[in-house]
Amino acid sequence: MTQAFTLGIDYGTNSVRALIVDTRTGEEIGTAVAGYRHGEQGIVLDPREPNLARQHPQDYIDGMLEAVAGALKLAQGHAGFTPESIIGIGVDTTGSTPIPVDAQLRPLALDPHFEGAPAAMAWLWKDHTSHAEATEITAFARQEHPEYLAKCGGTYSSEWFWSKMLHCARTAPEVFAAAYTWVEHADWMPALLCGVTDPAQLKRGACAAGHKGMFHPSWGGFPDPAFLGALDAGLARVRATLPDEVYSIAEPAGGLSAEWAAKLGLREGTPVAVGAIDAHLGAVGSGIGTGTLVKIMGTSTCDIMTAPLEQGLPDIPGLCGIAVESVLPGCYGLEAGQAAVGDIFNWFVERIQPGGQGHDALTEEAGQLAPGESGLLALDWHNGNRTVLIDQRLTGLMLGMTLHTRPAEIYRALVEATAFGARAIIERLVEYKVPVERVICCGGISAKNRMVMQIYADILGRPMELSGSAQTCALGAAMAGAVAAGAAAGGHADFASAAAAMTHTHPDRFEPIPGSQAVYEKLYALYRELHDLFGQVDYSANPAHVMKDLLEIKDAARAR
Amino acid sequence: MTQAFTLGIDYGTNSVRALIVDTRTGEEIGTAVAGYRHGEQGIVLDPREPNLARQHPQDYIDGMLEAVAGALKLAQGHAGFTPESIIGIGVDTTGSTPIPVDAQLRPLALDPHFEGAPAAMAWLWKDHTSHAEATEITAFARQEHPEYLAKCGGTYSSEWFWSKMLHCARTAPEVFAAAYTWVEHADWMPALLCGVTDPAQLKRGACAAGHKGMFHPSWGGFPDPAFLGALDAGLARVRATLPDEVYSIAEPAGGLSAEWAAKLGLREGTPVAVGAIDAHLGAVGSGIGTGTLVKIMGTSTCDIMTAPLEQGLPDIPGLCGIAVESVLPGCYGLEAGQAAVGDIFNWFVERIQPGGQGHDALTEEAGQLAPGESGLLALDWHNGNRTVLIDQRLTGLMLGMTLHTRPAEIYRALVEATAFGARAIIERLVEYKVPVERVICCGGISAKNRMVMQIYADILGRPMELSGSAQTCALGAAMAGAVAAGAAAGGHADFASAAAAMTHTHPDRFEPIPGSQAVYEKLYALYRELHDLFGQVDYSANPAHVMKDLLEIKDAARAR
Repeated sequence: MTQAFTLGIDYGTNSVRALIVDTRTGEEIGTAVAGYRHGEQGIVLDPREPNLARQHPQDYIDGMLEAVAGALKLAQGHAGFTPESIIGIGVDTTGSTPIPVDAQLRPLALDPHFEGAPAAMAWLWKDHTSHAEATEITAFARQEHPEYLAKCGGTYSSEWFWSKMLHCARTAPEVFAAAYTWVEHADWMPALLCGVTDPAQLKRGACAAGHKGMFHPSWGGFPDPAFLGALDAGLARVRATLPDEVYSIAEPAGGLSAEWAAKLGLREGTPVAVGAIDAHLGAVGSGIGTGTLVKIMGTSTCDIMTAPLEQGLPDIPGLCGIAVESVLPGCYGLEAGQAAVGDIFNWFVERIQPGGQGHDALTEEAGQLAPGESGLLALDWHNGNRTVLIDQRLTGLMLGMTLHTRPAEIYRALVEATAFGARAIIERLVEYKVPVERVICCGGISAKNRMVMQIYADILGRPMELSGSAQTCALGAAMAGAVAAGAAAGGHADFASAAAAMTHTHPDRFEPIPGSQAVYEKLYALYRELHDLFGQVDYSANPAHVMKDLLEIKDAARAR
Repeated sequence: MTQAFTLGIDYGTNSVRALIVDTRTGEEIGTAVAGYRHGEQGIVLDPREPNLARQHPQDYIDGMLEAVAGALKLAQGHAGFTPESIIGIGVDTTGSTPIPVDAQLRPLALDPHFEGAPAAMAWLWKDHTSHAEATEITAFARQEHPEYLAKCGGTYSSEWFWSKMLHCARTAPEVFAAAYTWVEHADWMPALLCGVTDPAQLKRGACAAGHKGMFHPSWGGFPDPAFLGALDAGLARVRATLPDEVYSIAEPAGGLSAEWAAKLGLREGTPVAVGAIDAHLGAVGSGIGTGTLVKIMGTSTCDIMTAPLEQGLPDIPGLCGIAVESVLPGCYGLEAGQAAVGDIFNWFVERIQPGGQGHDALTEEAGQLAPGESGLLALDWHNGNRTVLIDQRLTGLMLGMTLHTRPAEIYRALVEATAFGARAIIERLVEYKVPVERVICCGGISAKNRMVMQIYADILGRPMELSGSAQTCALGAAMAGAVAAGAAAGGHADFASAAAAMTHTHPDRFEPIPGSQAVYEKLYALYRELHDLFGQVDYSANPAHVMKDLLEIKDAARAR
């Protein structure tokens, strides 16, 4: 049987990675990373406006060429590989990262007329210049179309598609007027590779549309033109350029154009899958399927699940995003998350005790502690609560400090707090009949900190598996390429087949330790009381006893 | 008019100070400090028993000789001073610091037979070896004589007289058997100076007896012999050596003996006042009187007030100690306090962020913040709550942290928390008809940190005055010497007269700033809700709104 390979292209916040994968074994035979030339670490900033974060589309082009060339070079040494054996391509990017384009889908930033204008560049996901517009859209939707908010957690974000567009209309009208339409970065890349220049031919992905663009089949796709027009006439104009249908990553966006085949050294016509947001393809690359929660653990955490469309799904209170086919074809994609996880640990280490022990020393010392021994309990709301309270104004809390409390105890309590928050999310899913049978983790923290993973296993009361790949997003993109290519071409008929062949979990997995789990059951009950009180979930909550109960747990932990 | 002077001798935890003061002006004309020879910084420790803290009585003798000689030497240069112009002597010591003595009131530690035996030395106030015995006494008193506990805040402490004696009986029976009686350090020093060797002639002070020895006139003085005998027969034996009457500091314990007059170079027969505990004489040296609260601010804080005996005083719930004539003659002495104040700031600086900014830099930065601006709120219970909750098991809490929270904001929130705790004490006093008209502060923090004092003024909503003397305890002792000597001898007829002549406040005083006070009114209301919830005062408390209210206050503070 002939070997077949696919190429995954993964656009991160600061760099782009290319990865070449064997479709039969999942072996990663070549990978390379390229940075972006503009701005600081690839991000164009404005010292007068700290909320601004843009990227130059030319960097996306140049970075891809460099990364793909690098990956091909490494792959060449692999027995059985030739560039012709690449049968499919997939792309993931950050999102929502919309780009204003002209009527030929050319980014305005590439037009010399707009050279250097940040508004004409890609509006990076973490650009928060549009917070006022997000508030306006949320308020107006609450009044006119509350169903729009129900699918995105009750608040339309300043990070998302329409907020950014509206801010552009208000603050850079010449750019806004010149934009025929706006395209998510994840949609623009496949279109570019396939030579699609007619906006009517552009296949937009279900992922960004559903999670960031207020797209849902139940209201006929993108939002009502009248709704958008009432916000700004320009939005209605853009709305008219958007399709009624969006596509899952199983779909080819097209075939690689002659021009791009030549530039990349690949076969013309190679299927290029519809693009998606990095976290979602990371979930695919981790082997997501019904019953499997993929947890992407970094500065914040994203929890992704799928559920078969045919079974239907109620609105789940507190869940940030539910979209159709946003992760896998034929499934709802569910997105939950914690607004800060690694960021909380970094805050403590870098901001509160600079010159202190650092992550490694704190982890080493915190790892020696028994659950409950510190007498501390914290809420993980230093950046608000995304799921299940959807309240970004909530703040952190710590309780149980004494004059003997040490930094490592605080560090561990912060880790535990994030694990309690993770448990609250899983409990909500299970409560709404989304069974969580496995948890597979990927992302920086899962790979780096064994203590954190053990605490999560003990607190969640479940094994924590680790993704076997260190680049799950690129792998997920490569899998999309394999499915877009199809089984006959040496790819896969569907994602279940692709996942079975191309993904694996790490041999290490973290099992709950029964003794620790028992203590954490008690601590989680106390956490829930504080959570429900300060999250204003339960107005009859009276956690007056929490301090004393913690001391009993502490005494018991120390007596062992 | 002939000038007259008195000598105050102040025994602290690590050293003894002698101070010579002009009885007409309060001018401090000579002072010297001497250390103790034994142990570490004057404290005999036991590496196997971290709770143990003893002092050698010989150090008290040697230290006094050295300190008095030093003070006299400096005073000699003062116009009008001669050693003969010293008309009275007062003494204060730490407490409860009981000393086992033989039938001639000689400390057993000075008997070669007990050389080096820690049990035969002075049991320093902070010796906590007797915690089990304290628990036993508390439990037994709760059952047999709950009134004993009502005057000492509901718990008899391991730091106090009977706990230490009982622990000695249990663990060093040969020392306990050899002890004819036990004498507080504050009572032993005047007896020594006056050559009192007959225990029946020993005048014990009302201060240590009332606050530490379970002495109260309402039950006939020291505790019921049957009660003590049921705990240990030896306690009943000691009880039989104790008097029915104790004395205020206005009383002379006697006149300076010929032997000690020669040793010190002072006049034989010079009146020596009955001794008292340092904090109480510190209050006297700060000018305490009806309506004035003296706040001794250090690692912990002690709040002292007086109230006229003739007006009577109810039990005040949550107040640690109310004793008859323990501070001033003719008055109740009231003692409240916070178990940790400076200790909390030190904990944060030294333990949580070693290598961080340090007190000065944090104070500088925290001082730039507007009240409410940090969005933080804390409970000051890192060492439990002494007044008004009397619960040493309570722990700290902090709420409102975000990823932007800085160390200086936490530092200020901790300072504010201690000020809120201070306000809760004053509110309790006022509620029980003990008017607080002035607050005079002394102790390390009040002298060192202007930011702390301003925050206290703003939160308490009252001017914060500072004691004019840097050695208020020794000054109070010198005032006791002046009253013991009497007006005719050049001293004073009473403490009101002594205070008017010999004490003064510092020209700096801290006035509340109306804008800050208004914000702190709101924050104090939120503090009270957390206080009442976690202190289990109010079971209907529901401070769910606290997080959001804090943010509103924060936004308002930042908008200015």
